[in-house]
Amino acid sequence: MWIGRNRKARVTYGFDEIALVPGRITINPEEVDTTFSIPCKNGDALTLSIPIMASAMDGVVDVRFAIAMGKLGGIAVLNLDGVQTRYQHPDEVLAEVLSADKDHVTALLQKMYQEPVRDDLIAKRISDIKSAGGLVAVSCIPQRAEHVGPIAAEAGADLFIVQSTVSTVRHVSTKYPTLDLADFCATMPIPVIVGNAVGYDVTLELMECGVSGVLIGVGPGAACTSRGVLGLGVPQVTATVDCAAARDAYFKKTRRYIPIITDGGMSKGGDVCKALACGSDAVMVGSAFAKAFEAPGKGYHWGMATPHANLPRGTRIHVGATGSLEQILFGPAVVDDGSQNLVGAITTCMGNVGARTIKEFQETEIIIAPSIKTEGKLFQTVQNVGMGTR
Amino acid sequence: MWIGRNRKARVTYGFDEIALVPGRITINPEEVDTTFSIPCKNGDALTLSIPIMASAMDGVVDVRFAIAMGKLGGIAVLNLDGVQTRYQHPDEVLAEVLSADKDHVTALLQKMYQEPVRDDLIAKRISDIKSAGGLVAVSCIPQRAEHVGPIAAEAGADLFIVQSTVSTVRHVSTKYPTLDLADFCATMPIPVIVGNAVGYDVTLELMECGVSGVLIGVGPGAACTSRGVLGLGVPQVTATVDCAAARDAYFKKTRRYIPIITDGGMSKGGDVCKALACGSDAVMVGSAFAKAFEAPGKGYHWGMATPHANLPRGTRIHVGATGSLEQILFGPAVVDDGSQNLVGAITTCMGNVGARTIKEFQETEIIIAPSIKTEGKLFQTVQNVGMGTR
Amino acid sequence: MWIGRNRKARVTYGFDEIALVPGRITINPEEVDTTFSIPCKNGDALTLSIPIMASAMDGVVDVRFAIAMGKLGGIAVLNLDGVQTRYQHPDEVLAEVLSADKDHVTALLQKMYQEPVRDDLIAKRISDIKSAGGLVAVSCIPQRAEHVGPIAAEAGADLFIVQSTVSTVRHVSTKYPTLDLADFCATMPIPVIVGNAVGYDVTLELMECGVSGVLIGVGPGAACTSRGVLGLGVPQVTATVDCAAARDAYFKKTRRYIPIITDGGMSKGGDVCKALACGSDAVMVGSAFAKAFEAPGKGYHWGMATPHANLPRGTRIHVGATGSLEQILFGPAVVDDGSQNLVGAITTCMGNVGARTIKEFQETEIIIAPSIKTEGKLFQTVQNVGMGTR
Amino acid sequence: MWIGRNRKARVTYGFDEIALVPGRITINPEEVDTTFSIPCKNGDALTLSIPIMASAMDGVVDVRFAIAMGKLGGIAVLNLDGVQTRYQHPDEVLAEVLSADKDHVTALLQKMYQEPVRDDLIAKRISDIKSAGGLVAVSCIPQRAEHVGPIAAEAGADLFIVQSTVSTVRHVSTKYPTLDLADFCATMPIPVIVGNAVGYDVTLELMECGVSGVLIGVGPGAACTSRGVLGLGVPQVTATVDCAAARDAYFKKTRRYIPIITDGGMSKGGDVCKALACGSDAVMVGSAFAKAFEAPGKGYHWGMATPHANLPRGTRIHVGATGSLEQILFGPAVVDDGSQNLVGAITTCMGNVGARTIKEFQETEIIIAPSIKTEGKLFQTVQNVGMGTR
Repeated sequence: MWIGRNRKARVTYGFDEIALVPGRITINPEEVDTTFSIPCKNGDALTLSIPIMASAMDGVVDVRFAIAMGKLGGIAVLNLDGVQTRYQHPDEVLAEVLSADKDHVTALLQKMYQEPVRDDLIAKRISDIKSAGGLVAVSCIPQRAEHVGPIAAEAGADLFIVQSTVSTVRHVSTKYPTLDLADFCATMPIPVIVGNAVGYDVTLELMECGVSGVLIGVGPGAACTSRGVLGLGVPQVTATVDCAAARDAYFKKTRRYIPIITDGGMSKGGDVCKALACGSDAVMVGSAFAKAFEAPGKGYHWGMATPHANLPRGTRIHVGATGSLEQILFGPAVVDDGSQNLVGAITTCMGNVGARTIKEFQETEIIIAPSIKTEGKLFQTVQNVGMGTR
Repeated sequence: MWIGRNRKARVTYGFDEIALVPGRITINPEEVDTTFSIPCKNGDALTLSIPIMASAMDGVVDVRFAIAMGKLGGIAVLNLDGVQTRYQHPDEVLAEVLSADKDHVTALLQKMYQEPVRDDLIAKRISDIKSAGGLVAVSCIPQRAEHVGPIAAEAGADLFIVQSTVSTVRHVSTKYPTLDLADFCATMPIPVIVGNAVGYDVTLELMECGVSGVLIGVGPGAACTSRGVLGLGVPQVTATVDCAAARDAYFKKTRRYIPIITDGGMSKGGDVCKALACGSDAVMVGSAFAKAFEAPGKGYHWGMATPHANLPRGTRIHVGATGSLEQILFGPAVVDDGSQNLVGAITTCMGNVGARTIKEFQETEIIIAPSIKTEGKLFQTVQNVGMGTR
Repeated sequence: MWIGRNRKARVTYGFDEIALVPGRITINPEEVDTTFSIPCKNGDALTLSIPIMASAMDGVVDVRFAIAMGKLGGIAVLNLDGVQTRYQHPDEVLAEVLSADKDHVTALLQKMYQEPVRDDLIAKRISDIKSAGGLVAVSCIPQRAEHVGPIAAEAGADLFIVQSTVSTVRHVSTKYPTLDLADFCATMPIPVIVGNAVGYDVTLELMECGVSGVLIGVGPGAACTSRGVLGLGVPQVTATVDCAAARDAYFKKTRRYIPIITDGGMSKGGDVCKALACGSDAVMVGSAFAKAFEAPGKGYHWGMATPHANLPRGTRIHVGATGSLEQILFGPAVVDDGSQNLVGAITTCMGNVGARTIKEFQETEIIIAPSIKTEGKLFQTVQNVGMGTR
Repeated sequence: MWIGRNRKARVTYGFDEIALVPGRITINPEEVDTTFSIPCKNGDALTLSIPIMASAMDGVVDVRFAIAMGKLGGIAVLNLDGVQTRYQHPDEVLAEVLSADKDHVTALLQKMYQEPVRDDLIAKRISDIKSAGGLVAVSCIPQRAEHVGPIAAEAGADLFIVQSTVSTVRHVSTKYPTLDLADFCATMPIPVIVGNAVGYDVTLELMECGVSGVLIGVGPGAACTSRGVLGLGVPQVTATVDCAAARDAYFKKTRRYIPIITDGGMSKGGDVCKALACGSDAVMVGSAFAKAFEAPGKGYHWGMATPHANLPRGTRIHVGATGSLEQILFGPAVVDDGSQNLVGAITTCMGNVGARTIKEFQETEIIIAPSIKTEGKLFQTVQNVGMGTR
C-alpha cells in the first residue's frame, strides 16, 4: 500500500486480526503429536514433548520454576543477566519489586540491576537445575555471550540462548568488541538459539551462522514497551510467517531444519495456536507462565528492558497467580478465558483443523478476521468474563 | 491479502462490519413471507412460519420453553446432553448455576455435567413437549448420536440435530468409533440437521451425506470462548456467504434444497436480518431467547462447552430477563435496542429492501460498513441507551 | 471486496473515517459564499444564506424554534406527525418525556403518539410561524402526504417534505393506497422535498418525479437505532457521494439542478463540512440544534421512529442545552468541541480548502483517514475535553 | 479507493498505524549522528545537535524555557502572538489559565488574548533569551509577519517562523493585505520557516518562495481540535511522506536542501522516531515539553487556536509536570512510557534499524501495523502502565 507519495509499506498482522479455519477432516485431539526438536551439533536433537518454552524473565523463571517446567516436558530459560545471577538470595530482592508502588518500580528496577552478575552464581543456578534431572536452558545478552557461554556449558547447560531486543549478525560498534556469532556457534558445545528477529533476511543470516533456533518477535511482550518507546516492531503474525519462509528456504538449500520459536504476545491458548499455525515450531511464553503459583514473580511480571538505566523499555504488570504450572500447561482449566491448559488448546485446535503434527498445523488455513474477538461478545466484554476477561 | 512472505489469507467479515442497503422498491412489511422449510425424507417438509430457532442450550430451552416456542410458530431445540436429561429435577441444579459467583461457576458447571445422561429422561422430555402439540427438536453430540437418535425418534421427536464445535464428515480416531453420518441420516426416520460448519467444502460434504440442514458458525455465540481459547473460527458473514454458496451449488447439482441455519452471534434484530441477507434460510439464536421470562436460565446464559472437564470453552453471562418470548419474537418491543420483536425486524427490513420472501431477502445488496455501528451514535454509546445499550 | 464465495460488497465510509485536505490556495473566510437554493416550480427558488436546515423532530422544532431559525437565515422543519399537531398544548406532553426515566420513556412515547393528528392544529402551527415573517417548512409521512399536503400549502407553508425511513418511488402494498409521488409533486403548489434515500438509482428516480430536493441518510441520526434494529443503512460519506453523482447525472440530462441535503450523523462543525465536501448542497441537523436553549426538548432529543407501536427504532438521548441557536449557528463558540458556530466552521473550512462557493467546496480533496479522530488526542479523550468530549 | 460513485480518495496513515522494521545491520546507539541543519541565506546553516524543536505554544515556551532548551542543544520557539508579548507579567495571566475550571477556560482564553501585542515586549523577550547565549527562534501569524519580522530580527532573533493553521503561498482576501512570502523571505536577514503544510504541491510552492524550512502537520496537536471543528487535516505519516517527497524533488531541481519539520501528534519517543523515519529532518513537539518542570504551563497545555474569539479550535489539557527538560530530552527516564529521553529513543531506534544519520534513518522500512499498539498489551492497557499509560 502507498502510505504517501513515492513510498509504499506492507500491511502486517497481529494475533487479534486473524483466525484459524476448521478443517475438512477432524482428528481426535488425543492422537495428535506436538513434539518439538532443537538440533544439536552431532546430528542429535533436544526433543521436547510440548512446543512451549518459558521466557528468560525474572518474574517467570528461577531454579524452582525451571525444574518444575522440565518435569512437565517443557523447558524454561533462566536469564543469566537477571536477579538470579546478581544476588545470592534473589527472593529478597524480588519481594521489593512486588511491593513497590507503580510510580517507583521503574527506578527500583534500574537500581536493582546495577548489582554485577556473578560467575559463581551462574554455575550454581545451572547445576541446581541440572541436579533435578531435566534439561537446562539459559540466556544472556550478546555482549556477554563469549564470557558466559563457556561457563554455562561447563556447568551443564543443555541449551544456550543469546538474546537482545534486535539481533543481527552484523552489529557495528567502534567502542566495544562485537560478538562473532558464527565463531561462537562453532565453539559452543551445546546448541545456540539466537533472537530476537523479525525479518526474512536476518533470520536467514542467523541460520547461516550455525544457530540451532531463532526467536521471533520484537516488542510484543505483555510487559514490553519497546513499540511505544522506539516505534519499532513487527506484529507477530507477519513476523512469524516471514521467518518461517526463511527457515523453509534455508532448509531447501541446506537440508538443515532450524526451528523458529515465536516469542511474546501470546497470553491465551488461541494466540499460541495462531503462532504455530503461522509457521512457528514452538512458542516462548512469559506472562502466561508468570501466572503460575511456581513463578518467582508471584503474580507480577516485568520486561527485561525495564531496568535499562537511561531508557527503560518495559513495565511491571500484575497478572495474578491463578493456577499451578501443570494447570497452565495441561489443565484442568478452572478459568474460561483460555489462559490455562495451553497444551490442551493446541491439541484440540490441531484436532479441529485436522493437523496430526506441528508441521501439518503450520499449514492451517488462516483468515484475516478482525471481528473474531468481538463478534457476539458484547456481554463477555461488559461483564469481564470469558474472552472479555481483563 | 499477503499476511507475510509466501502466505496469503482471505479477508473475512462479521456482522458489525456490514450493513444492508435499502431497495429501489419497498414493500408493506405485513405482506412479506418469512416461511422456512426443513426437508423430510419422504419429500415432505417441516414448515415454520418464522425462520428462527432457539439454540440447544441449557439456559435457553427446557420443556416449558420448547412448548411456548412451538405455540408461537418457531422451534426450540432441546439439548439431550444437558441438564434436562441428566437430572430428574433440573430446576434445582439450574438454581445453583444462577447463584454461583463468577469465580466458581466454571468449576460448578464442570462438576454438574459429570452426572450421566439418562435414556429415560430423554424419552420423557420429548414426550412432554410432544404432548403439547408442537414440533419437537432435539440435539446431541456425534459420539452419542447413534445411541440417542433412535430413542429420540421413538419418543416422538420431529427433528434431530447432531451438534459439535466443528463438524466434518471425516473424523479420525483410533480410540473410539466415529459416526458414519451418511449411514445415520439414511437410518433415522426424521430429518437430521448437522453442525456446526463454516466452510464451502465441508458444507457440501455434509449435504452429500443426506442431512436436512446445516448449522453455520464456529465460535460466535455470546457465551462461547472457543475463538479465544483455540484461535478458531470464521466470522459469521463470510461463513454464511460461503456455506450459502455450497447450498446453491448442491442444489444446482441435485435439485435438493438443503437449508443452512446461521447459528450464533446475533443478539439484535439487525444481526438476524444480516444473517438472512447473507444467504441463510433461518437463524438459530441463544442469548436473545435467554432473555425471555420463559427461559430456564432466568436471565443467565452459558456456553455448552463451558462444562468441558479439561478445557472449558464457554462462560456464563448475565443477559437479564427482559420480556416474554412473545415480545421477543413479535413485540410490542418496549426496549429500543432491537432485542425485542425479532420477527418485526425481519419483516420491516424485508419491506425496506423490497424482498417478498426469504429467498429474495438473501439477494439484498450488502455493503462493508465498519462505521455503521458508530456513525452519529456517540450519545447513545456514552449514555448506554439504544444502540449503545450494554 | 469479496465478503465470501461468489459475493462482493462495496466498502463504504462514514464521517469519522475521512478528512478534508487543505488547499493550495486559501481564502479569507469572510469572503466565501454559503448560499443554498431550493428550486420552485415557477423557475424561482427559495434561497437561504446558510446551507443548514433543522430536522423535523419533536425535541428540536416547534413554532418558536422555527421562527428563531428563520430570523437567522436558516429553515427549520416542523413535523406535522408529531406532538405539535396532536396536542393543543404540546409543552405539557413534552415535559413528561423529559422527566420520564430511561426504562419507561419508550413506552411513554409509544402511548403519546397514539393521540390523533388534528388538521386544525396543522393549519394553526403553520400560520403561527408564517406570521413571524419567515419561511415555513413542514413534513409528514408518505401515507398522509396527499391529505396533509393541500392543508399545509393552503395554510401558507413554503416547503413540504415527505419523509420516511426509506423512501422509494415504488412502494408495494395491497392493503393501503400508496403515494403517487410524481402526481403529488405536480399537484402541490410549493416545492416538495423527499427522503430519506441513500442510493444513486433511487435518488435519480425521485428526481424524475419532480421533487425539489432529496434528503440523504438512513439511520445515522444521533437518536436513531434503525441500524441496530434492522441492520439497514449506508454510512453518510458514501451515501452522499453516491446521491451527489445522481444529482449531477440528472442535471446533465435535464439541466435541472435538484439539491441533495445530507440528513443526520453530524454533531460537529467538522461533520457538516465533510458532508458538503462529499457533494451535499446543504445539511439537515437534529441533535446539534436540540442543544439550543430555544429547542422544545430542553436538552433532550429522541428519534421520530421511537414511538412506533410495535418496533421502536429510536431512543431518547440527553444532549444538554448548551447555547443559544445563534451561538450554535454563528458563535461566538464558548465550547471547544465544534458543536457551536457551525456556519463559522463551514466558512473557515471553505477558506482553508480554497472554496469560494458550496459548489467549489463539493470538489474538495477527501482522504480516507481513520486516524484523524485519534492521532495525538489521547489527553483529550482521557480528559473528556475538546475532540474527546463525551 | 472509491468512497462512492465517481469519487476516489487516498488512504492515509497516522503514527499509531505504522511501525518501523529492525535492520539487517545494527549500530551502537552512541555512535549515530542526529545533527539537524537549517540553511541560512549566506550559505551557512544553523546547526543543532538534536533534531527536536519546542512548539511556539504558551504552555510550553517562555524566556526561561527557551534558554534551558538552548543550553541542551535544541531550540524552542517563542510565540510572539501569545501571552509573553501581550503581558508585561505573563505569569500572573498564566496562573489564571491553570486554575480555571474546564467549563470556563475557553472563555477565559478568548478574553486573555484580546490584550494587544506590544512591540516593546517582543524586543525584550528576544533579547532576554539572546543574552543567555543560545539561539533565538520566534513565531508569528502571516498577517503580522511583515510588521513583526524586522522587529524580531533587529532584536537578535536567529530564526523566524510564520505559522498558521494552514499555510499557502496564495491567500485570497479583498479585505486585508496578504503576505508576499517570497518578498518577505528575501527581505528578512534571518532564516524563515513557514507552516503548517501537509501537501506535496504546497510544500514545493513554499520552498520556491525561499523558505528555510517547512512545518508539517494540520491538526495533530494534543491540544488542537481543528480536525473535529473543521473536518480538516492529514494524518502525520502521510503528510510527512508527501512533504518529504516535495523536499526531495525541490532538492533534485535546485540542489538546495530545505528541511521539513513534522509538527504535532508526537507524545512519545516512538512517535518521534516514526516521524523521522517517514522522512522528516526534525520534529516540533509541544505536549511532551509541556510536561517539563521548566514549562510555563506547569503541567497544563493548550492549543494556540483556543483563544479564537468566534471559533475556538483548541482545548486545554492536563499533561502533568513529570520531569526536567533534561530528562525529557536525554533521560535518565524514570517513567516507562516513552515520554522521557526522546533523544535516547531516537539514537536507540537508529541503532536498531542500522541508521548512522537522520538521512539514513529516513530510509527505514515502514510497515502498516495497526496492531502494533495493542498486540500483547492488554495488561498494560487495563492497568494504565507502560504503553497503556493514560
